[in-house]
Order: sequence, then structure tokens, then C-alpha cells
Amino acid sequence: MVDRIRLGMVGGGNDAFIGGVHRIAARIDDRFELVAGALSSTPEKAQASGAALGLAPDRTYDDYKQMAIREARLKNGIEAVSIVTPNHVHYAAAREFLKRGIHVICDKPLTSTLPDARKLVKAAEASDALFVLTHNYTGYPMARQAREMIAAGDLGDIRVVQVEYPQDWMSEEVQNKQAEWRTDPERSGAGGSIGDIGVHAYNLACFVTGLELDSLSADMQSFVSGRRVDDNAHVLLRWKGGARGMLWSSQVSPGNENALKLRIYGTKGGLEFAQEDPNYLWFTPLGEPKRLITRGGAGSGAAAGRVSRIPPGHPEGYLEGFATIYNEAAEAILAKREGKSPPEDVVFPTVQDGLKGVEFIDACVRSSGRNAAWVDLP
Amino acid sequence: MVDRIRLGMVGGGNDAFIGGVHRIAARIDDRFELVAGALSSTPEKAQASGAALGLAPDRTYDDYKQMAIREARLKNGIEAVSIVTPNHVHYAAAREFLKRGIHVICDKPLTSTLPDARKLVKAAEASDALFVLTHNYTGYPMARQAREMIAAGDLGDIRVVQVEYPQDWMSEEVQNKQAEWRTDPERSGAGGSIGDIGVHAYNLACFVTGLELDSLSADMQSFVSGRRVDDNAHVLLRWKGGARGMLWSSQVSPGNENALKLRIYGTKGGLEFAQEDPNYLWFTPLGEPKRLITRGGAGSGAAAGRVSRIPPGHPEGYLEGFATIYNEAAEAILAKREGKSPPEDVVFPTVQDGLKGVEFIDACVRSSGRNAAWVDLP
Amino acid sequence: MVDRIRLGMVGGGNDAFIGGVHRIAARIDDRFELVAGALSSTPEKAQASGAALGLAPDRTYDDYKQMAIREARLKNGIEAVSIVTPNHVHYAAAREFLKRGIHVICDKPLTSTLPDARKLVKAAEASDALFVLTHNYTGYPMARQAREMIAAGDLGDIRVVQVEYPQDWMSEEVQNKQAEWRTDPERSGAGGSIGDIGVHAYNLACFVTGLELDSLSADMQSFVSGRRVDDNAHVLLRWKGGARGMLWSSQVSPGNENALKLRIYGTKGGLEFAQEDPNYLWFTPLGEPKRLITRGGAGSGAAAGRVSRIPPGHPEGYLEGFATIYNEAAEAILAKREGKSPPEDVVFPTVQDGLKGVEFIDACVRSSGRNAAWVDLP
Amino acid sequence: MVDRIRLGMVGGGNDAFIGGVHRIAARIDDRFELVAGALSSTPEKAQASGAALGLAPDRTYDDYKQMAIREARLKNGIEAVSIVTPNHVHYAAAREFLKRGIHVICDKPLTSTLPDARKLVKAAEASDALFVLTHNYTGYPMARQAREMIAAGDLGDIRVVQVEYPQDWMSEEVQNKQAEWRTDPERSGAGGSIGDIGVHAYNLACFVTGLELDSLSADMQSFVSGRRVDDNAHVLLRWKGGARGMLWSSQVSPGNENALKLRIYGTKGGLEFAQEDPNYLWFTPLGEPKRLITRGGAGSGAAAGRVSRIPPGHPEGYLEGFATIYNEAAEAILAKREGKSPPEDVVFPTVQDGLKGVEFIDACVRSSGRNAAWVDLP
Repeated sequence: MVDRIRLGMVGGGNDAFIGGVHRIAARIDDRFELVAGALSSTPEKAQASGAALGLAPDRTYDDYKQMAIREARLKNGIEAVSIVTPNHVHYAAAREFLKRGIHVICDKPLTSTLPDARKLVKAAEASDALFVLTHNYTGYPMARQAREMIAAGDLGDIRVVQVEYPQDWMSEEVQNKQAEWRTDPERSGAGGSIGDIGVHAYNLACFVTGLELDSLSADMQSFVSGRRVDDNAHVLLRWKGGARGMLWSSQVSPGNENALKLRIYGTKGGLEFAQEDPNYLWFTPLGEPKRLITRGGAGSGAAAGRVSRIPPGHPEGYLEGFATIYNEAAEAILAKREGKSPPEDVVFPTVQDGLKGVEFIDACVRSSGRNAAWVDLP
Repeated sequence: MVDRIRLGMVGGGNDAFIGGVHRIAARIDDRFELVAGALSSTPEKAQASGAALGLAPDRTYDDYKQMAIREARLKNGIEAVSIVTPNHVHYAAAREFLKRGIHVICDKPLTSTLPDARKLVKAAEASDALFVLTHNYTGYPMARQAREMIAAGDLGDIRVVQVEYPQDWMSEEVQNKQAEWRTDPERSGAGGSIGDIGVHAYNLACFVTGLELDSLSADMQSFVSGRRVDDNAHVLLRWKGGARGMLWSSQVSPGNENALKLRIYGTKGGLEFAQEDPNYLWFTPLGEPKRLITRGGAGSGAAAGRVSRIPPGHPEGYLEGFATIYNEAAEAILAKREGKSPPEDVVFPTVQDGLKGVEFIDACVRSSGRNAAWVDLP
Repeated sequence: MVDRIRLGMVGGGNDAFIGGVHRIAARIDDRFELVAGALSSTPEKAQASGAALGLAPDRTYDDYKQMAIREARLKNGIEAVSIVTPNHVHYAAAREFLKRGIHVICDKPLTSTLPDARKLVKAAEASDALFVLTHNYTGYPMARQAREMIAAGDLGDIRVVQVEYPQDWMSEEVQNKQAEWRTDPERSGAGGSIGDIGVHAYNLACFVTGLELDSLSADMQSFVSGRRVDDNAHVLLRWKGGARGMLWSSQVSPGNENALKLRIYGTKGGLEFAQEDPNYLWFTPLGEPKRLITRGGAGSGAAAGRVSRIPPGHPEGYLEGFATIYNEAAEAILAKREGKSPPEDVVFPTVQDGLKGVEFIDACVRSSGRNAAWVDLP
Repeated sequence: MVDRIRLGMVGGGNDAFIGGVHRIAARIDDRFELVAGALSSTPEKAQASGAALGLAPDRTYDDYKQMAIREARLKNGIEAVSIVTPNHVHYAAAREFLKRGIHVICDKPLTSTLPDARKLVKAAEASDALFVLTHNYTGYPMARQAREMIAAGDLGDIRVVQVEYPQDWMSEEVQNKQAEWRTDPERSGAGGSIGDIGVHAYNLACFVTGLELDSLSADMQSFVSGRRVDDNAHVLLRWKGGARGMLWSSQVSPGNENALKLRIYGTKGGLEFAQEDPNYLWFTPLGEPKRLITRGGAGSGAAAGRVSRIPPGHPEGYLEGFATIYNEAAEAILAKREGKSPPEDVVFPTVQDGLKGVEFIDACVRSSGRNAAWVDLP
């Protein structure tokens, strides 16, 4: 067994949600070891959080820049860092690590602004280090399966892409840490639901179909009184090559917990994937009975098998899908260690995907501000 | 038992689909008796079809006008007529019966053009006879249940209305009678999927929510080469009062047979209804567990009970929902016989609903023709 | 069109459930006309019920025997009779019609006792008239589809048959007409849930698989205090040829409305059918993805198509399945009119199937009385 | 953060299935560290497997007894051991660790024979170390939720327990390591499907309901020619206190991957849980609409919340459920470290549960051998 990758973390202190997810994800396949952290911008919280995680006191930092500088100099300093802060910190934090050759695993969306996103792309391109964006839903085996089938032509030419991501947890005014920064444009960016979850939906649609978006028309709302960002968004999609589609993101739709769903229809068949039931993929070839492909079951192919851990009927979930992004990152990092390219089948969301996501959010916000006018993607 | 209502039929000859549906629907609750027909515009087919249905030869007509004239004079002539022709015939046929005081039960959409629709409204208003439009999906008990719950405030203020109606039977070029006239703008009207099924979706959304549409933006496509009408339509919806939504109709989405689905979200809860599984209604009150209400089961109220025939767990289907429209028509016709108003809880789609449907189709066609520009509804 | 079959009815007065179902079922395909009835054993109720149904007063009888005698003599007397009384009346009523050459369509179970069942078989065999038992679930297209697939060998050799029929409406003591006679052994027979619904489950399993039962071991309970018949039954099944299985019937299982479900597994694949969602059939060939066959959709064959009325995605329900039994009866009766055999593909439950059902109930009761000892079927 | 628990493993070499599951499960919540192993009884494989897992060579053993002896003497020797061998090794291996005060986490069933199970109970009782059995399905939050609801009386008095565990992977003769030992009575014990998966179903039913089994009647088959243990089992259940039920285990039912399902019905309501969709629990209170409780969603209580990691709509799976058993073990072990009892809400399957499981298997085998005679549980 090769040595575990030494990992640091920025953000993810005691009362955070996604930091804990990243830590479990990093652990599941046993290829990372968390050894350092700047877990909070509040020093006491940073220390307490580091202690709770068993980090050495001298590798528990109050400040990510400090961490980047010192860890880069340590003999066994971190090789990679997970950035799990609110969006507006992503760029500045990532830059510090990238410029010191430390690989970055960053939460989505890439940044809170489009200029930041562009700068981050440059920073990543200028660095020898890897940049991995945790659009975790691309880690689901059945999302990989769908992608593989489309690439193989099982759907023929794609005509229609329907993607939606409704939630209900912000149906009323919410006052907790998670909601607070997500509804603050300074920290989340100009997009509300579209930036928090719509961008996941968009990324997954691109990932699975292989299509590029040409233009969009977005009609976004803030239903909860006083909310400064959208909590519901309806978007018409025109894909390059002629496919059309719709995207719906919502955080005010009661009964929907985390209901990301993707449906794709082509000349030869259809596919349907729902992240809340991620071990299933409906495949509906035109003129044949509907087929329910299960993760690892008959009809489930190599791309899904590569990222599965257990047999069919033994459900994998959100954490395993997330872990797959970490595992893919590990593959790439370990290849780097030896100066090699990662194996060809290693796939993870890149800084370019992140830029596309921020461009998408930006286009939605601009379109909606102009009464849902059509806006071209760059 | 009062005498059955004497019914005639225009269209619905041997190789038609919807005529047979109307006949079964009229029979299920035993309140109509088919006694006359102008079942085809081809005389031989009209005769053969009439004979196959056991109509008397002298009440089997080659021509609906002839039928209207003669039946109006007969002592026991028809009291009502079902018009089940392609769309472009609806107006002219309905007019002949309305002006002779014969009640009209007409298939949707109301007409193939907006001017015809307006004229038909006038003809109906000028007549003492009733006009019933078979937007049959409003006959489903659980659609009635949803409507009743929304009217009672169970969802609070409505914010989001998602409605879709995908099918797949026209994914490729289809050559049969059903497809032929539906893709001919002269007979179907300017709308393809939007006129054939999108209008059902729109009607059901209006029926259940009680909302009125303010404006829309439609992006429609004809994916199958050479098709002269849309076979896929994406529509952004802005409802009066602030609710927003999306409508999708498609006839090219493999795996969808007749997948009309309505989802409605308000400040207090959500509802979800799928016509392919019409005995179920999901109700998701905010902050409470999801509830699956079954037709006639606990939580299923008076509006659904009024139009149910059998106990919960004994599924009713499409034909029963359709029959409910006939049954509601019968209630109204029998009340008319006695010079009364129908009971207050009798509900059926009217000529005004039909006009709204044609206005919707027209607005979609105009919007799509102008690059999905916003179009106000009248 | 040939003349409709003149139909009488025994039982099915105003407050009955199944009589109304039979009447709708007889009407759906327009091959019967209800012209006479002995709808209740209470004369006033018989008259009132007949009037409500529009029967002529002189064909509204107080007594089924009277009806049999007089109708047999009328020039246009009934050709067939539906017997929809409580179970204990079936034999005596059926005998009167059979011996006068009037076809009998009888509700299940065949009789309330095994001796009666045997006598009824003899009466039917001695008569030139047809006997049709309304095990209505055999009328579902997807039950026919399952049967056709098994007969074609799609499942290979059958190994396991799991069938269940839970309900919940008798979870507490129920006092209405439906519950009253069903829990009275004098009227329902010795079986409670096993006789009311278990026998449907057994019949459907036999119908679909084509297997014959060799022996059984039944453990039955009466959970509701004071109930004189079983309200829950667990039965181990040993089929001839080596297949094994279980049958569960229950009327005390909250959350189950009418949840008849059949699962069959063979050497080559499995099938699953649930009557509450009757337009679907799961087919799971070993080593291939699961397939969901929809009524009329791809993979749905001739046997299902023969008994379908409308296209896929337009759900048929319980009443249509029931109507198919009537339609099959009509096919056989019309063939008889002309002295012919019915077409080969006409299938309906016979008096022999009814005898098997009563033998099954009897075996369950005997087994359960002997501590679930194995009991051979005759 | 307290120090991670030092863990060893017996079995689980390179081509094993369940060993890898145990390792991930131990890792997810970061409370264990694998530091030693006797991963195979074949020395080369043991060494290679240890190296692949990054174990120190001097803590990679060829033999579990050697490991128990040496680790017990090391200053930082293992505190706990996972035993993941085929069943026949469980007893002898567990004994070596228990008698040296090393906690045992053992896969199910407890042992391959009833005498071994009894001896293991004694060994565990004589030891100060803990014994935890990985009936992992008890780790699912919604199984905990069901248990909590039943204990709170939400179902009233339980009447009916239906539990089933069908699979299909042994529908034909299978030649791989997993299948080989499972069909060898010397290694798996006298039970085939009943010992491999039926015992899980039985354990889960006991865990959730809190009932004890009084007696059973089992009819078991070996459908695949030459198979020496059952591959399908049908069992009638009589619970103490009057509840009744059925249990079905099968490895020859095509279309079932790992379809453990539990349905429980009481005087006041029902529950339904399916392990393939473990984030859901159906609750059907008598006379109220069906409710779908989601993990962490509304209606999901403290017992489920305690063992959940992520919010509703973010599915947890098999590995997280398994990890919960490890986490509960960690709670108990850490309490032991400090001489305390574990918190009251810590729950895990014990050696007594394991004995009950083996008694169940034994009773099934004896009953089936005597033509499904009733056999009392001890």
C-alpha cells in the first residue's frame, strides 16, 4: 500500500455541514489522512475544531494562508487541501495553495463571482498542482453509467434534457449558519438556489450528456420575503447541436428534500436518474420495455463498476458518491507523485467545469434581470 | 330511474381512437344511450360504423348537419351530441347542434384556430344548450381532491406550478390516422404537442390550482424531420398573483407513454399527481411526513368521493375519469330537462375553458415564433 | 351488431357493493343488457332496487326461483344471470338457472360449503348452459400477460410462488352489511379472509402459473375479538411438480387496501404483479436488467392486447378487468347462440376452478384446525 | 479526540467480500484504526493482504491464535478484533480473543453449529471483553426508527410480522469463493439461505418488534441440483404473545438482489421497511393517510437521528448502516476503557442475539427435516 495522501482542510469547523462530509468522503477509501486544518476564521473555533478532529496543535491554523505557507515548507507537509468554506473564500484560499504546488479539492460553486472564477482558472493553469471540484453527484455510479451509455450512443442523438433540483428547507425564513451565508450575495454570490444547487444540476446534465450549453433564458424568483437571492429558478436551455431542455432549481418546494433528477431523451431512447435513489437508472430504449438498471446489476457497465464498492442490492449513498470524487483525486495525485498521468478512466470535475458553472450562474442572473432574455454562454 | 339521455355522435368511426373512449365513458354510469351518429365523413364508413354500433339505419347519417337538422325535428331526437372529430371540425359541427338546442359534448382542444374558438363561445352563449369540453383528466377523483385541498388552503399561497405531459409515440415519423391529422396544421391547428397534450396539462393546472395565467414564454421544437408542428414544447409560466411555473409537452421522449404529471408547491405544502397512477395523490405539508392519499382512502374527501365508484385499493382508471365528465354532463342535462340548475358540486370544463386552452396554444405558438418572447394571455 | 345478451341479476340491491360492480362490468363493452332482477330477498327492497335500475316492474322479482321459472318461459327472457348474493345462496340460486338452460355468471367463492360446490359442479355439467365465475383478477391484461409468458417458458421451470392479499378494513370490529355476512360462517362459509380474498389469491396463482396445488399447511387466526372466522391466514404451498410457495391473506393489516400481489420465480426469470397497479408487470429475466412491461407497451403481447381497450399510459382499472370476465362470457354465450365453441383464446374461470377454490378453503380450514398439518388437495 | 481503537482482523484477505465492508465500516466514523491482521489461513495470502492494507509486517499474522497471543502482550496491542471468516471459524477464533480480554466484533451467523454457539456464549460471558455481532441491518436509521415507534406503541399490539429476504445470485450453480463455502455445510453450517440471510431477516424482525419467537414450521428446499444446503426457505412464525408471521429467504428468486423487507402490522397501524431503499419507512396508521417517513425528515425521531450522518434527501446506504454497528461498538469499548457502562441508547447485536439466530437456524433445519413440524424455540 502506498502512503496515504496528507490532507489539509480550510473551513469545516464544528458547526459546518459540508466539511464533515468531505472528511468522511476522504476516509471511505482510505487514501487520505487529514493532518492539518484552518477550520475556522475564528481562532478559538479553529483550535477547538482541530482538537476535536485529533489534529496536532501545531498543524491547527487560524488562517489558511499561514497554513499554506508553513505546510509547503514542512518535510511532510500536506500534499492536498480541501476547501470547504462559503463560496466567497474559495478563490483566495485556493490561490494560496495552488501557487505553492499543493493540490486543491474545492467545494462548489467554484467562486462567488465570475471574475474570481476566471482568476482561479489562471491560477490553476499556472500551477503544477491539481484542482478538483467536488460536484459530488458526478461520483454516483449510475451517473457514470448514464454518461457511458450516452457516449456509446445508446440514446442516439439527444433531443431533450430535463433537469431539476428542488428542495424545501428554505420555504420559510431560516436562521442558521447554513442558510445565512447561502442567502447573502456577498458570500454566496449573486445566485441563490441557482448557485447553490442549480449549478449542481447543470454540471450533472453536462457531465452525463457531454453537451455544451449554447444559451439560456432564466426566470428567477425570491419567494420568501426579504430574501436577497433567488430561491426558485426556471431556466430554458438551448444546447449546442440542437438539443433543448429545462432546468428548475428551488428551495421552496415542500416535499422535496434534495430531489436532483435528470431525464434525457434521444432519438433512440431515454434515461432517468434521481439522486435520492442513486442505485437505480431507468433506461427506456424506444420500442422496448423499460429497463431498471441497478448499480452493479445486469446492464451496469464498466464505468459504474469502477466506482462501486459493494454488490448490487447493497445500496451505496451520497457519501460513497462523494468519496468517489476523492478517490479520483487520489488517483490523479498519486500519478502526479510518480510524474505520470492518471489512468484514462479517472474522471473528476475540473476548474474548467467550475468556470462553466459560474458562467452559468452569471448568465442566469443576467437573463433573469432582463426579463428572461436569452443569454449566450461564453 | 329517469330516462337515459339520447346521445348522438359526430366522428368516431371504425378506426378512430377517441370515439370509442367517449362511447365507453358514456356507458359506464348508464345515463346515456347512443341512438344516432354521423360517424365518418365517408358515407360507406359512416354506414358501416353505425351498423357495427347497432344504430338504426335511419339514424346513421353521412353528414353532421343533416343529423342536426333531422334529429332536432324528431320526437325522440337526440338531446346531446358528442363531437369527436379532428379539431378543425369542432366549431362548425358544434354550431349546428347548439343552434338547434342540442347539448354538445366536445373533445379538446376546443377548435383548431383562435377565431373559431371565439365564434364557438358566442354560439354557445347564444344557445340554451350546454357545452361540455372533455378535458377528461379533470374527471380523476384525485385531481378533484387536489383542487379541493388547494381551495381549502391546504397549500397556502401557491408559488410554483410544474406541469408536464411527455409521450413518446411520435419519436419517429408515424404514419397512421391518429398521427396524420395531429401533425397537419390544417386539421390540428398551429400547435402540435402543445395543442394535443400541452393544452390538457395547462387545463389541469388551471383546474386544480384555480390560478389564471398572466403570461408565458414558449420555446417549441419539431425534432422529427419534416414535421410541420411542434413535437416538443418548453414553456415558462407566470401566473396572476405571483406564482411561477413551467410546462413541458413532448411526443418525442422515449419511455413516456402518457405521463401527464402535475406538481404544485405553496407556502404550506405541496401536491403531486400523475395521471398514469391516478388513484394516488402525494400531499407534503411543510414540516410533516409525506402523505400518500389514495382514492377513497383516509384523507380523501368529498370531492373525490362524489366521483368515485368503487372502494380504495380497487383502481379506477382513464375510462372512469372520462366517464365522470359524461356523468357531470348528465347531471347538468337532467337538471336542464327540469328547468333547474345542476347541483353546485357538478363541475365540468366549459366553452370558456376551451377558449382559454386555444388562447394558450395560440400564445405558445406566437411566443415561440418570436424566440420565446413573453406573451400575455388575453 | 348482434343483439345484446339479455341479463338478469340475483342479489345486488341498493346497499350492496359487488352488484354495482357487476352491472358496470356488464355495461363497459356493451354486450349485455340488464332486463330482470331478483335484487333482494326483501320484497320492498327488491322492488325499489329494480325501479332504481330502470327494470320493468314485471321483471322485478322478489325471489330468484320465480325469476328463473318465469324468465325461462318468456319469449325474450334472460339468457344469462349474474348471481351476486352472499356465498351461501350461490348454489341454490345457480341451480335454478342452470337447470333451465340459463347461463350463470356467479361471484366467488363458488359456494359456502364443499358439498354445495360439488353439487354445483354436477348441476353445471348436467346443464347445457355456461357457468362463469367472476374471479375478476384474471381479467387484468397484465395477469394474462404473465400467464402467456409462463406458458411460453419465459420463466423456465417454476420454483417459487409467493402470493398475498392483505387488506385492512376489518382491523377492528366492523358493523356494516359487507362485514356482517362475511364474518358469519353460515353465510360466508368456514373461511373468513381465506374464503373472501385468499381464494382470489389462490385462483390467480393457479391461473397465471398453470400449476396445480398438491398440499398445504395453513395457520389461521381471528385477531379481532369475537370474530368467528379467520381474519388472517398464512399458508405454506407445495405445488405438483416441485414448486413451493406461500400465501398470505389478511383483513387486519393496516395500510393495505386491496393489496393482492403475485410473485413467481423460475429457473430463467421472475414476474411480479400487483393488482393495485394493474397496468404494470415486472419481468426479471435472470442475468438481464429488470423490465417493466406496461399494458399495451413494448413487450406486452397478444393475450394482454386482446383484453385491452385503450393505449398504454391510459390506465385501465378494476372495472375494466372485471368487464373482461363479462366480455369473455359474452364471447362464449354468443358462440353458444350459434351452436359453436367460443374462440380458443377466450378464457374465463369455470365451475371447476370454483370447486378448486372451495377445496382450497376447506383444506386451509382443516389444516389450521389441526395445527397447520399438511393437507392434500383432492 | 480520544485515541482511535486499535483493531485487528481475522479473515478478510484479498478476495473476500465482507472483510472489505468491515474495514470501510470501521473507517467511516474514524474511531478505529486497523493495525493487525490474520487475514487468511494461507500464509502467502495473509502476507500479501496485509501488505496491501498497509499493515506492519510484524503485525501481519498467518494464524489468528498467534495474533491473539502476541497482540495481547504488546503494549499497544489491538483492543478489538473483527472476525470475518467463514462461519465455522467464528467460535474458535472469537474464543482466543475473548479469553485474552480483546473485544470481538464478529460477522453473523454467530457460529456454524448450535453447540459452538452455546460455547461461545459462555466464552463471552466469562470474558470481560465485549462481543458485538454485525447484524448490520439493525444499524439502518429507519430500522431504529421502526423499533422506536413500536416501543412507543405507535402500532398498538402487534399481530402480523412478514419478513422476507430473497436474492437471486445462486439461481444457478455458482463457482466462486463466496458461493463455495456458503453451500458447504461444514463451513456454513446446516443452513443455506436460512443461515446466510434468513437469520438476518429473523434478527431484524426481533430487533424491530421486540418480540420473541415461540415456535416455527419450516419448509426448505434445495432447488439447484446438487446443492447440499437449502437455497429457499418458507417459515411460519408464532411469536410469544400471539403475533403470527411468515419468513421467506431465498437465493434463487430472479430479480431480487438483496431484497430484505420487513412489514409489521398491529392493532393501530403498520410499518414497512425495505433495505434496498433504506432511507424510507412507510408508516400506515389505521384510518389515516399513509406516511412516508424519510431518514432525518419530519416524523423521523431521536433513535434514527442518533445514527444519521447527513441531512434528509442525502441517501445513506449499506456501508453507513454497517458503520453504525462499529460506531456503537466504539461507544461501548470507549466506555469500557474508562470503566463505565456505555450510554443507554447504544444498541448493538450481542452474543445472545447470535445464539438466538443459531437456535433459529437449527430449529428451521429440524422442522424442515420433519416435514415442517412445529418446533419450539428454546
